[in-house]
Amino acid sequence: MESFDRIVIFGVGLIGGSFALALKQAGAVGEVVGVGRRRATLERAQSLGIIDRIGDASSVAGADLVLLAAPVAQTEALLREIAPHLQPGTVVTDAGSTKADVVQAARAALGGKLNQFVPGHPIAGREQNGPEAALSDLYRGKKVVLTALPENAEGCVSKVAAAWERCGALIHRLTAEEHDAVFAAVSHLPHLLAYALVDDIAARDNADRLFSYAASGFRDFTRIAGSSPEMWRDISLANRRALLAELDAYAAQLSQLRAMLAASDGAALEQVYARAQSARQAWIAAIEAAEQKRSYEQGGD
Amino acid sequence: MESFDRIVIFGVGLIGGSFALALKQAGAVGEVVGVGRRRATLERAQSLGIIDRIGDASSVAGADLVLLAAPVAQTEALLREIAPHLQPGTVVTDAGSTKADVVQAARAALGGKLNQFVPGHPIAGREQNGPEAALSDLYRGKKVVLTALPENAEGCVSKVAAAWERCGALIHRLTAEEHDAVFAAVSHLPHLLAYALVDDIAARDNADRLFSYAASGFRDFTRIAGSSPEMWRDISLANRRALLAELDAYAAQLSQLRAMLAASDGAALEQVYARAQSARQAWIAAIEAAEQKRSYEQGGD
Repeated sequence: MESFDRIVIFGVGLIGGSFALALKQAGAVGEVVGVGRRRATLERAQSLGIIDRIGDASSVAGADLVLLAAPVAQTEALLREIAPHLQPGTVVTDAGSTKADVVQAARAALGGKLNQFVPGHPIAGREQNGPEAALSDLYRGKKVVLTALPENAEGCVSKVAAAWERCGALIHRLTAEEHDAVFAAVSHLPHLLAYALVDDIAARDNADRLFSYAASGFRDFTRIAGSSPEMWRDISLANRRALLAELDAYAAQLSQLRAMLAASDGAALEQVYARAQSARQAWIAAIEAAEQKRSYEQGGD
Repeated sequence: MESFDRIVIFGVGLIGGSFALALKQAGAVGEVVGVGRRRATLERAQSLGIIDRIGDASSVAGADLVLLAAPVAQTEALLREIAPHLQPGTVVTDAGSTKADVVQAARAALGGKLNQFVPGHPIAGREQNGPEAALSDLYRGKKVVLTALPENAEGCVSKVAAAWERCGALIHRLTAEEHDAVFAAVSHLPHLLAYALVDDIAARDNADRLFSYAASGFRDFTRIAGSSPEMWRDISLANRRALLAELDAYAAQLSQLRAMLAASDGAALEQVYARAQSARQAWIAAIEAAEQKRSYEQGGD
């Protein structure tokens, strides 16, 4: 099994911190170096045993693997800082929620060292943030999408894949464009829709009365509207084109439903609702079957 | 404290069954009679101790209280069956998710006995249905909205309120029109939006790939799309006018967001997201404060 003498992590919050804890628990890493803008965060990460020492961009010299887990908007600047210190044996990956913009940033920042950068996106999260929220099992059974570049040597991609596999994750591969189209549909659009609904209600004169009658269905539907506005602003802009396409498809779907409702066409409405219900039931059943299979293969729990 | 010699419940599933169990547990009812279209369901309810015996429309003669907990579309037909057997001392209520249509049905069916009908809507539910899903504490701490009619004698309204209070519920009063406008915004629209998103994705050629990357945010956002298509067809049609108004307000909000995104106006997007996030945080904080207060007043748990 692959193991790593030194890993450098930029951003030691939930995502970067959980990566470090998982690799340490798996015995897959010698030393973890943390880099970040806030000294206090790095010190907390160190006292929590997430990182072994605090470093800077020059710490990537001689490292096996570098993970960028800072806000996506910083990717290009970080890669420019790293580039001069990047030696041939080191692979760099990231954990951003959008990929085409990250690839563009890497092309701009890394020049001839682009072949050492393997873009990635772990599909895992929690509502909490910061090093205190990091969990060694955050990635267990979760998907990590790698969007390898044509320039990547296969050795680089398999090294990143191996690190995530040591965290318990399942590796999937897509192109950056496929990735961004998929996540525009199943993640970025729902976030925008949830924010839109809550803001629509909050702006009313009788918002307090409306919220006072909102129940568990509303609570679950809008849970993702509790996410970081800055992060979702960046994701929305980074994946603007795919998100606009999804928003237009959804608006067309809503105007069809509106027409059915205006015409009191109960049969047509019921057909849409029933198709949605059965598609969702099939999806949940598939998730549960996959979870059971995994739990069986791991010998229970 | 109010108690009831005989209560007749039409529809002994989750809603009607939980009402019966709660009143029995509170020692607030002598005999519970169950009425329904499916003999097997009634027999299961009887063997579960939810009802004491199986009756029919004539069982309402001499009863204290009648609850209609069958699908809302049956309300008018049930009230017509009940009307000839309804004696002056009996109060009738219902548990439908829409109220203006129920009032219209009652006006059509009950004639001079309309003053004995108090429309109601308990804001509680589970994903399961049927008598097996009934819980004695389903209504504990939950809201019940009564939309009393101008014709109601105050004694009728307070009798219905007392029954729900014995179930542990909190009584709120709105007009039927206020009720329907509120629930169009915080319940009926979100259901339609969730069904629309799942169906939009399920109809694609690459639906399997899209669903395979959907994660917990999507799961929560679409949980309500697992609800009964027939029930939500009926609710959509019954509250058509208010739901159309909400759908139009939401579509206008989405086109504003679309314009911000098309213009790459990150500041404007972030403002909407941030307003939504803080409104939702305030709402959740208010819910948690109310829950703590209730738990304190009940002496802990």
